[in-house]
Amino acid sequence: MGKQIPGRFIVWEGGEGAGKTTQIGLTQAWLQESGWLEALQTLVPQLKPVMLVTREPGGTALGQHLRQLLLHSPTDIAPACELLLYAADRAQHLAEKILPHLDAGGLVLCDRFTDSTVAYQGYGRGLDLGIIHQLNQIATAGRQPDLTLWLDVTPMQGLGRAEKRSGSQDRMEQATLAFHQRVQQGFAQLSGQAPARIKRIDANCSQAEVTIQIQSCLREVLRQWYPQISAP
Amino acid sequence: MGKQIPGRFIVWEGGEGAGKTTQIGLTQAWLQESGWLEALQTLVPQLKPVMLVTREPGGTALGQHLRQLLLHSPTDIAPACELLLYAADRAQHLAEKILPHLDAGGLVLCDRFTDSTVAYQGYGRGLDLGIIHQLNQIATAGRQPDLTLWLDVTPMQGLGRAEKRSGSQDRMEQATLAFHQRVQQGFAQLSGQAPARIKRIDANCSQAEVTIQIQSCLREVLRQWYPQISAP
Repeated sequence: MGKQIPGRFIVWEGGEGAGKTTQIGLTQAWLQESGWLEALQTLVPQLKPVMLVTREPGGTALGQHLRQLLLHSPTDIAPACELLLYAADRAQHLAEKILPHLDAGGLVLCDRFTDSTVAYQGYGRGLDLGIIHQLNQIATAGRQPDLTLWLDVTPMQGLGRAEKRSGSQDRMEQATLAFHQRVQQGFAQLSGQAPARIKRIDANCSQAEVTIQIQSCLREVLRQWYPQISAP
Repeated sequence: MGKQIPGRFIVWEGGEGAGKTTQIGLTQAWLQESGWLEALQTLVPQLKPVMLVTREPGGTALGQHLRQLLLHSPTDIAPACELLLYAADRAQHLAEKILPHLDAGGLVLCDRFTDSTVAYQGYGRGLDLGIIHQLNQIATAGRQPDLTLWLDVTPMQGLGRAEKRSGSQDRMEQATLAFHQRVQQGFAQLSGQAPARIKRIDANCSQAEVTIQIQSCLREVLRQWYPQISAP
């Protein structure tokens, strides 16, 4: 095999009901069935499995505790405390799971990352963007995703989906429509600032159409990242 | 009564076994018995009780959860995560308890605050002092104690006391002697940088002698802060 290939880090972002979880599952299945994963595994035989699928908040055992506190706290969480807890979850997640997998040459698929903090806490709740940037830096030591898929859904449509899905609402879903519109604007701003990293996927259409857009984007990126693999 | 008096914030700092908890209890009793507290209460009749005694980590319900994670986590906590959790605990503690009490003109006695983070995580564990400073700023929005009593005990003596006290050791007490020496040096540095705020108390002597030093220091400071009260 010769020298090790670099690890690759793909993040899914988007508002409530954008379909991230479903689409990550479909992407996993597609990578498996299409032969991409098998080909990738042969490039990194020592790392099994070569793909890690994870999420924030709550990607580690410690993070699970923090996720409970963040989403279901019985008392009001102070805004600065909320920011610091998301950052703590992220720091642990990176150190314990993401970085070791990337350092070994693996592929990481992650449900939410730093852009969610900017969009939800910064644009949505109006917290200081400078502080959010500082905390993202501290939590990640500057490590950014190699690719971010932004599943862009209008808040009206996304919230309708989220409510149908769960029956009940967590703290984020209960926020007002205006909040979720600011979150969407946040993702739009971020996408404008980093067009090479963040790819917008129109998530207002049917699940099958969203899947087609994602696969088309991933096919192109995977070919660039792994020229050794003759496209399956 | 006229216009409201400013709130006052006193912090106890020091290494393991310095006697902070005992001395805070003795100070409480002394303030009560000497008549200081009663006199102070008449200046702030709308805030009952006028004195709040609290501690970090774990001064709030949310903080209790974080304290459990920090002191008894079964998995390794990444250094950046640890810093962020201490900061999150502090942000919540300030927002929920300390600042409301100070804003109402009250007196706050707190077991540990930002200097502990600098001494333990910065000097003790060698984490980036610049990041620690950033996080302390974010968590406190710049609010510093009005007075810090640094109970300075040599690590050998302090660790001996701490072990006798508890029978078992938490994660901090288990660290090496060299670690606790670096922590002590950290407190010494901080005290040198802020001599007006941080008063060193020699905590190597007997409990009664430590109490005398603390009362002497507090008597002077309280007379400055509350000239309306004729010294009890």
